[in-house]
Amino acid sequence: MRSDIPNNLKIIVTGGEGFIGTNLCKRLKRLYNSKILSIDNNISNSLNSKFHEGISNLVRTDLNDIEKIVSLIKSSDLVIHLAASGNVIESVQDPIKNFENNVLSTLNLLEAIRLSKIKTVIFASTGGALMGNTKPPVNEKSVPKPISPYGASKLSCEGYLSAYSESYDVKTFALRFGNVYGPYSLHKKGVINKWIKDSLKDNNLVIYGDGNSTRDYIYVDDICLGIEKCIEYSFRRDINNNFEKFHLANNEEISLNHLSQLIISKTNSKSKVIFKQLRKGEVIRNFADIKKAKKVLNFETKVSLDEGLNKTIKWLSKYCS
Amino acid sequence: MRSDIPNNLKIIVTGGEGFIGTNLCKRLKRLYNSKILSIDNNISNSLNSKFHEGISNLVRTDLNDIEKIVSLIKSSDLVIHLAASGNVIESVQDPIKNFENNVLSTLNLLEAIRLSKIKTVIFASTGGALMGNTKPPVNEKSVPKPISPYGASKLSCEGYLSAYSESYDVKTFALRFGNVYGPYSLHKKGVINKWIKDSLKDNNLVIYGDGNSTRDYIYVDDICLGIEKCIEYSFRRDINNNFEKFHLANNEEISLNHLSQLIISKTNSKSKVIFKQLRKGEVIRNFADIKKAKKVLNFETKVSLDEGLNKTIKWLSKYCS
Repeated sequence: MRSDIPNNLKIIVTGGEGFIGTNLCKRLKRLYNSKILSIDNNISNSLNSKFHEGISNLVRTDLNDIEKIVSLIKSSDLVIHLAASGNVIESVQDPIKNFENNVLSTLNLLEAIRLSKIKTVIFASTGGALMGNTKPPVNEKSVPKPISPYGASKLSCEGYLSAYSESYDVKTFALRFGNVYGPYSLHKKGVINKWIKDSLKDNNLVIYGDGNSTRDYIYVDDICLGIEKCIEYSFRRDINNNFEKFHLANNEEISLNHLSQLIISKTNSKSKVIFKQLRKGEVIRNFADIKKAKKVLNFETKVSLDEGLNKTIKWLSKYCS
Repeated sequence: MRSDIPNNLKIIVTGGEGFIGTNLCKRLKRLYNSKILSIDNNISNSLNSKFHEGISNLVRTDLNDIEKIVSLIKSSDLVIHLAASGNVIESVQDPIKNFENNVLSTLNLLEAIRLSKIKTVIFASTGGALMGNTKPPVNEKSVPKPISPYGASKLSCEGYLSAYSESYDVKTFALRFGNVYGPYSLHKKGVINKWIKDSLKDNNLVIYGDGNSTRDYIYVDDICLGIEKCIEYSFRRDINNNFEKFHLANNEEISLNHLSQLIISKTNSKSKVIFKQLRKGEVIRNFADIKKAKKVLNFETKVSLDEGLNKTIKWLSKYCS
């Protein structure tokens, strides 16, 4: 079935100045010549605003002032909700702050969307943190079992997306991302970013646990491709208003030991790996099965870990001083 | 394995003045001679305080003042968290208010529990609203799919119970109740209460939809028995700190048409049934499979729908003027 995407799509991207947001805004501008409004409180101090010139309009505000958000988003075609506090360890240290940034703000945004009669929302969820230590591969039929407040915050948001879909006729989608890496990520604290920066400075790489923990990593261009596929899907005439969720990942299970060696080798670094105690809230082993996204959205990743790491190292080497 | 319940158990019951809370406090006093503190903001105006004499101490406050709650609950053995706004239709009308009463207050309570180093929490969750229109019977392996803000609020709470269990070493339990009915429920707006009151006054009974919608109904004494079984289980030495969930219900699927005729007949009423349009947020068909509670908690219901309705009609006839 053909997708009926309107010309000059008006898109709201929350967290537009973030890591994924900046990559996404560039892609959406190129694809649809969209009118893009980024709503971002920039709590992460991303320094990405300079990359938005000619791409998107930037508004700095949080999502809790419902009236203000209604005035910003009304008459848009769709909302892509990326804004969140994404750090698992910080959520264990301060669950209330994480809840306010992730759950409260999402519910307020959903209320603004309902009041604005916007018909479509795409939400950035998570695979690993949502599923905790469920035996991988996880998929859309797995029962969520978060082990950190961050994972619980994403499950809460998915629950409200499901409820809003049925109670108020909004089309809602949760895209459950694997571990995303790539350019425009100077402010990010994920393991790939941290280790590339450490390796470039010949600092030691810290592994919490024995290094046999696994994740699936996905290059940011592939995540943006998944969002693009979901946008196309959301404008098909033959779909109903049910909440739908999709895992977006790379189908490759990578251990921390392997990843650290890859990064050290690619950066020609003198860094060593040191091991510390496993931290509460961190998942031991996780990767996702992406058959549903492949079948329904026609999604397939295009960038291998090898290529993605090369691109990310190149970008970080240029911008990380 | 034997349960090591301490003598003179100190128990906190949130929502203690509510319908289930009042029934539960009476049972816990009788069972364990517990020292019971009820924390309740009495937003439902339950009129149940008079039934607590000699049973429990009543404090009127909400759960959002974490410091105050810490001072009230510290040195308790366990918290049973029943307080919530339980009405599905009201949650569709005002999702933010429902969120504040159910999710925000639960997270603040969990923070107070963490700070007080209390080791055990039992939470009143829901079967039907959590699962939405998932094909019944639902069980603990079903993937939650709430269709109302109320259902989403309970899923959010379960997610945080799961996270707190793993991140902070608290034993957390979610008991997913079927539709509970019984005495001390003058303020309740559930269908059994509403219809008994209507029938006693020969008013018409309103069915939303065609009356073929089904639910499982469970008498409040059986719910309190389930909570008792969960308390015993929580004090066993051989269990770990994982979050655990159990459906508590009656294993009997009853249609609204059948239920309305039962109530009209038992009250010798002249009431007629009238049909109105189905309302958003209400589940079409739901009942739960309770094998896990039976196997793990040794839980079995003791009161049939017939007997439970007779008792409830008797109680409401006495107190409903």
